[in-house]
Amino acid sequence: MSNSFSKEYLVVAQNASGRNMQVPIYRFRGQQQGPKVYIQSSIHGAEVQGNVVIYHLIQWLKRIPIRGEITLVPNCNPVGTNIKAGEYTLGRFDPVNGTNWNRGYYYDRDAVLKFARTVGPEESVESIKQRFRQVLQQGLHQRLNADWGLGLANQLNLKLQTLAMNADIVLDLHNGPVSSRHIYVPEYAADAAKLFNIPHVIFIPNLFAGALDEATFCPWWTLSENLTKKYQRDFNFNIEAFTVEMGSQEVVNFAEGEEDAEGILSYLNGRDVLVDASIGPAPMLRYASKLKDYRTLFTQTGGIVEYCAKPGVPVNHGECLAKVLNVDELDNERAVELITAPCDLIPVLHFPSASVLSGTQLYKCLTNYHQL
Amino acid sequence: MSNSFSKEYLVVAQNASGRNMQVPIYRFRGQQQGPKVYIQSSIHGAEVQGNVVIYHLIQWLKRIPIRGEITLVPNCNPVGTNIKAGEYTLGRFDPVNGTNWNRGYYYDRDAVLKFARTVGPEESVESIKQRFRQVLQQGLHQRLNADWGLGLANQLNLKLQTLAMNADIVLDLHNGPVSSRHIYVPEYAADAAKLFNIPHVIFIPNLFAGALDEATFCPWWTLSENLTKKYQRDFNFNIEAFTVEMGSQEVVNFAEGEEDAEGILSYLNGRDVLVDASIGPAPMLRYASKLKDYRTLFTQTGGIVEYCAKPGVPVNHGECLAKVLNVDELDNERAVELITAPCDLIPVLHFPSASVLSGTQLYKCLTNYHQL
Amino acid sequence: MSNSFSKEYLVVAQNASGRNMQVPIYRFRGQQQGPKVYIQSSIHGAEVQGNVVIYHLIQWLKRIPIRGEITLVPNCNPVGTNIKAGEYTLGRFDPVNGTNWNRGYYYDRDAVLKFARTVGPEESVESIKQRFRQVLQQGLHQRLNADWGLGLANQLNLKLQTLAMNADIVLDLHNGPVSSRHIYVPEYAADAAKLFNIPHVIFIPNLFAGALDEATFCPWWTLSENLTKKYQRDFNFNIEAFTVEMGSQEVVNFAEGEEDAEGILSYLNGRDVLVDASIGPAPMLRYASKLKDYRTLFTQTGGIVEYCAKPGVPVNHGECLAKVLNVDELDNERAVELITAPCDLIPVLHFPSASVLSGTQLYKCLTNYHQL
Amino acid sequence: MSNSFSKEYLVVAQNASGRNMQVPIYRFRGQQQGPKVYIQSSIHGAEVQGNVVIYHLIQWLKRIPIRGEITLVPNCNPVGTNIKAGEYTLGRFDPVNGTNWNRGYYYDRDAVLKFARTVGPEESVESIKQRFRQVLQQGLHQRLNADWGLGLANQLNLKLQTLAMNADIVLDLHNGPVSSRHIYVPEYAADAAKLFNIPHVIFIPNLFAGALDEATFCPWWTLSENLTKKYQRDFNFNIEAFTVEMGSQEVVNFAEGEEDAEGILSYLNGRDVLVDASIGPAPMLRYASKLKDYRTLFTQTGGIVEYCAKPGVPVNHGECLAKVLNVDELDNERAVELITAPCDLIPVLHFPSASVLSGTQLYKCLTNYHQL
Repeated sequence: MSNSFSKEYLVVAQNASGRNMQVPIYRFRGQQQGPKVYIQSSIHGAEVQGNVVIYHLIQWLKRIPIRGEITLVPNCNPVGTNIKAGEYTLGRFDPVNGTNWNRGYYYDRDAVLKFARTVGPEESVESIKQRFRQVLQQGLHQRLNADWGLGLANQLNLKLQTLAMNADIVLDLHNGPVSSRHIYVPEYAADAAKLFNIPHVIFIPNLFAGALDEATFCPWWTLSENLTKKYQRDFNFNIEAFTVEMGSQEVVNFAEGEEDAEGILSYLNGRDVLVDASIGPAPMLRYASKLKDYRTLFTQTGGIVEYCAKPGVPVNHGECLAKVLNVDELDNERAVELITAPCDLIPVLHFPSASVLSGTQLYKCLTNYHQL
Repeated sequence: MSNSFSKEYLVVAQNASGRNMQVPIYRFRGQQQGPKVYIQSSIHGAEVQGNVVIYHLIQWLKRIPIRGEITLVPNCNPVGTNIKAGEYTLGRFDPVNGTNWNRGYYYDRDAVLKFARTVGPEESVESIKQRFRQVLQQGLHQRLNADWGLGLANQLNLKLQTLAMNADIVLDLHNGPVSSRHIYVPEYAADAAKLFNIPHVIFIPNLFAGALDEATFCPWWTLSENLTKKYQRDFNFNIEAFTVEMGSQEVVNFAEGEEDAEGILSYLNGRDVLVDASIGPAPMLRYASKLKDYRTLFTQTGGIVEYCAKPGVPVNHGECLAKVLNVDELDNERAVELITAPCDLIPVLHFPSASVLSGTQLYKCLTNYHQL
Repeated sequence: MSNSFSKEYLVVAQNASGRNMQVPIYRFRGQQQGPKVYIQSSIHGAEVQGNVVIYHLIQWLKRIPIRGEITLVPNCNPVGTNIKAGEYTLGRFDPVNGTNWNRGYYYDRDAVLKFARTVGPEESVESIKQRFRQVLQQGLHQRLNADWGLGLANQLNLKLQTLAMNADIVLDLHNGPVSSRHIYVPEYAADAAKLFNIPHVIFIPNLFAGALDEATFCPWWTLSENLTKKYQRDFNFNIEAFTVEMGSQEVVNFAEGEEDAEGILSYLNGRDVLVDASIGPAPMLRYASKLKDYRTLFTQTGGIVEYCAKPGVPVNHGECLAKVLNVDELDNERAVELITAPCDLIPVLHFPSASVLSGTQLYKCLTNYHQL
Repeated sequence: MSNSFSKEYLVVAQNASGRNMQVPIYRFRGQQQGPKVYIQSSIHGAEVQGNVVIYHLIQWLKRIPIRGEITLVPNCNPVGTNIKAGEYTLGRFDPVNGTNWNRGYYYDRDAVLKFARTVGPEESVESIKQRFRQVLQQGLHQRLNADWGLGLANQLNLKLQTLAMNADIVLDLHNGPVSSRHIYVPEYAADAAKLFNIPHVIFIPNLFAGALDEATFCPWWTLSENLTKKYQRDFNFNIEAFTVEMGSQEVVNFAEGEEDAEGILSYLNGRDVLVDASIGPAPMLRYASKLKDYRTLFTQTGGIVEYCAKPGVPVNHGECLAKVLNVDELDNERAVELITAPCDLIPVLHFPSASVLSGTQLYKCLTNYHQL
């Protein structure tokens, strides 16, 4: 009646002590056929709320029957999780060379176009899907086995991607610095945005910048567009991938994690992964922008900053976003500089430290946003 | 009618570009005689709220007349303020060698005892005070001019101390990691604790561990005790020094900074620094422990932590302080470990990151505390 | 008779204390017309030998007459120079976000192609050059003045590029980790490789990856190729740019710096910058590979490494490059792993620490190399 | 005929992934009675040559018979070994709080004096030694089991010390930054200095500053002095402990490691640990200073440094130690500052980076040195 469960470990790196660093893989299989789901968290080491979300998902999955299979990989970056610099976790990039831990996944546009040429007008979506997945896995394995080796972040990403690439649905759980909950949704899957309980949505185009969600959907999107154009009919491979930002980094909250888990279950139920479940999306306001309208405001000056605008609370053009204190001018009118909103916007996240240099990403904001 | 004002700069270090790093010195002098006050902030680079407090103090001091002199040195550590490691400020210690920026001040117990032997039974407190200050400054300058040089943190500390050593009242503004407002008060000045608007108080003994407050009061306390014992009468030099922890690091808040400034003015008014001001302490609950009862709870295991107890809210023996998630055990009963209070306590601060290794300072707590 | 000299400063950033961070600009102008030369050093903060080279160049330029103008900007990254992490300089990337300090220069291929369409068949190279430079400067200024601001590394790069863009010859002085002297030369300027006294040469194609040399020559190369194809004649704009790697990071040597400076003067003399100078290239062996054959060998395992192959000394296929000690296996035959050369090669640089994780860039090597 | 061998692991910490971090323990037992020896390496994570030395010691110990027991713990700090900050290892201190990994060992002078009072005039050295060791182990265990826990570095140190405290001979293998081989020798064991093949010797007094060698010999030295004074006869417990600095950090060399191992065997042979071995000290010059004459020269200014004096090569008063380049003054006579020797000295180590702030430990030097 219930799901079967297994746990195993995947070695993703080796540290300077010569010891294996591995990630746990939790897997639930339903008794009925259905989509394969892959969920990972904490590819950026300081973004840990996703681990709590996966904990709650596992509690649910021990009780509620699913179709298909759900694979969960919490704390998927054992290197980044364990680099401290001061009290905080230096989790965003490889401390050796600055490589972002979330930019080394595999996508080869030329290989997709080459594969597209092998698809005849009559081939079924199922058959295409199966063949294409094989080709993708081959490309991945070839890269992983490069004769001169591969960089650490790249290796880590590709080893995780061998798991993700078998899935139809991929969720990559992240956090912003100080952040509202928000989600990156590929434009073709825009309707999914309403199935999550996430207030802020960024719609992204078919462009690869190295992240797992893009690496997952770009091949299928590209293939689908190519074939649709060629054969003038729809090719829907039912592959979806999302980067889900579960609030702020460096903090976890079990109660919120339970709600986060419910939101994910709501989406999964919308995709027929749950059997006889009644979980649906919460009634709430959801706002969205296109990626090109999801803008970063950089500081022009350095100083000590109070973040006056809170993530998620709309700000009108000209209203105060932040105050910057200049310690050399405390006795005169240059003591405090006001930074105001360049247009109407919803701040989604802000920098997590009061001390900023010039050129710091102060806020990231939805602009030209609309309600979903 | 009003105070005179001046601003200057003190070079405290030179960076690898060969350029001077300097701190701003704001100084207000009243028209009447009175105590000398020295206030600095941000010796730990990530503890920045004190800069906002000094900003508000300066606004007040432009308007309200004082007795004596107030010297304010915001952002007193231009090295520590500017070391980023990831998005946060690595401000607690010299990144080269780990030396805490707040442990290199000068105190020489033997020099105090040697000086004490020069004091005759009839010498006035004023005369002793003047002679002793000279001796202290000489000791300081001698150390600063060591023939083989001095370490960076040590130099920084001693240069600031040349300013602080002339003062009768020294306030060193800090922040905790995630923290309530609290204050370190030398036991002999316990009554001062009620003049500030700070809810949590730690009474410290006549022991030097390297910090500015200790470096300021230890010589006078030691001298006073020594002479009192010898001559069987009171020697009160009216020197007070405090480390004031203005909430959490890495954040500033202007509105709270204004209240913080008022609390300091309340204390200064209690010490006759203000002329005709009516600022007094706020009615509030204040709790205190001795330093030996201000205890640190360390983690026994590593993992992902939710801090369930909030700074400032009392916790009873056995109640939950924190939950630790173990990502390798999410499917079983070892998934979440509870850390409970080993006794009745008030948590004053906790670690600022959810990711902890074993041996992490999870909480610092008042125990055996009493209401003031 | 001699050159005129001036010195000024350019503000390139502001630190968290709200203070300007500036770079010194040394400029020599000859009495005769000639090319404009721009030389900078230490965009990566730990790569400091170039500063010594510029010091020696300045001593020469005070004595020997030049044609045109030479601008020298030592220590061009005052942020990266001053981030310590332990005793070493964390100089390769912005510690806040991992952004490589040498990847944010400006190049807009589309803008080049658009400009190319404005060039008529009769326009002189001089006229094209003047107009194109104006267009490039406009593009640069537009980007620098982006309404939502720019990231720190990007700002730094673009401000330096406003200086470099006026030059005909650009030298960007770097260092490798533990490294022989080597130079990146654009394929079209291959003959320049023999004018420097640098033993190892990498020929790079017309591809932009963000560095200053590429940002300098890519527009002109692209323009030249486009016009040559269109009008079937040569368009030579005499723009050359090189990244010159002056040995190992974290060390300087004045005597070697003098030789380095002579090598640069040899090249400049070859480009008619020096008046009546007799400095020419040293007789020496020079080896070169194409960029695609300049390969990185990554570690497969973590451990403690002895680098057996020295930078600059050829290694045959199968010979030992490195030994890796595994501290868990000291009692058996797995204690030491040998890493051997996958083909004939010249190691150019190796990782500067004995402690490596899997996926570390152990060696970078010339393969398929030939003597120049 | 040969030694028996065993290998086990000791858990010393747990990382943020909740995983145990352990150190390997290699142990050889001879067939004859004899002293117990404890050797560890890499308590500072970047000081790795000791691991190679232990590797070579193990190869010897598989072949040559010993008396007593030798315990070897390479890579004894799995936390510090694995913190990278840029390409180097941030191995000297806990990155969270700056705590030096080599300052948290246990020594309680009062406990020693208390124990001394329990020793009667007739008690044998063997009996005292056995009882005292028990008391020391109790003190250690009590501290390790503190009810509010212990800091990470402290825990690591004490866990290692439970192994070291059973030994009669303790060697703690370190490296300097850029360094000659040197050794810290307790004054009472001065004759041991000639048994090692180490050219530079620092004699240290009976003072505890937190390191393992001090933590090992201070209790016995204090006890011995106390009893000798009380009972007017010699109490020799034959406990020796040394910090041995095996050259420079961040590099390993297998060939040199073999020589290092031979030097240690020479000392062990001098202490009767080897059976029928003919290994003795090499003929070489050895120079020594007292700790108070082992002096640190700090920089007064910041800049780019060439280290002109090489570790191990004597420098006369007034000769050049270093040149400092100031990038803002390259055109005038302030471009290069000379730092000269304040007295006759032997530089033992220097800072490992060319970029220094003011207050940097430029050189550590033997002064008032003499030949052994």
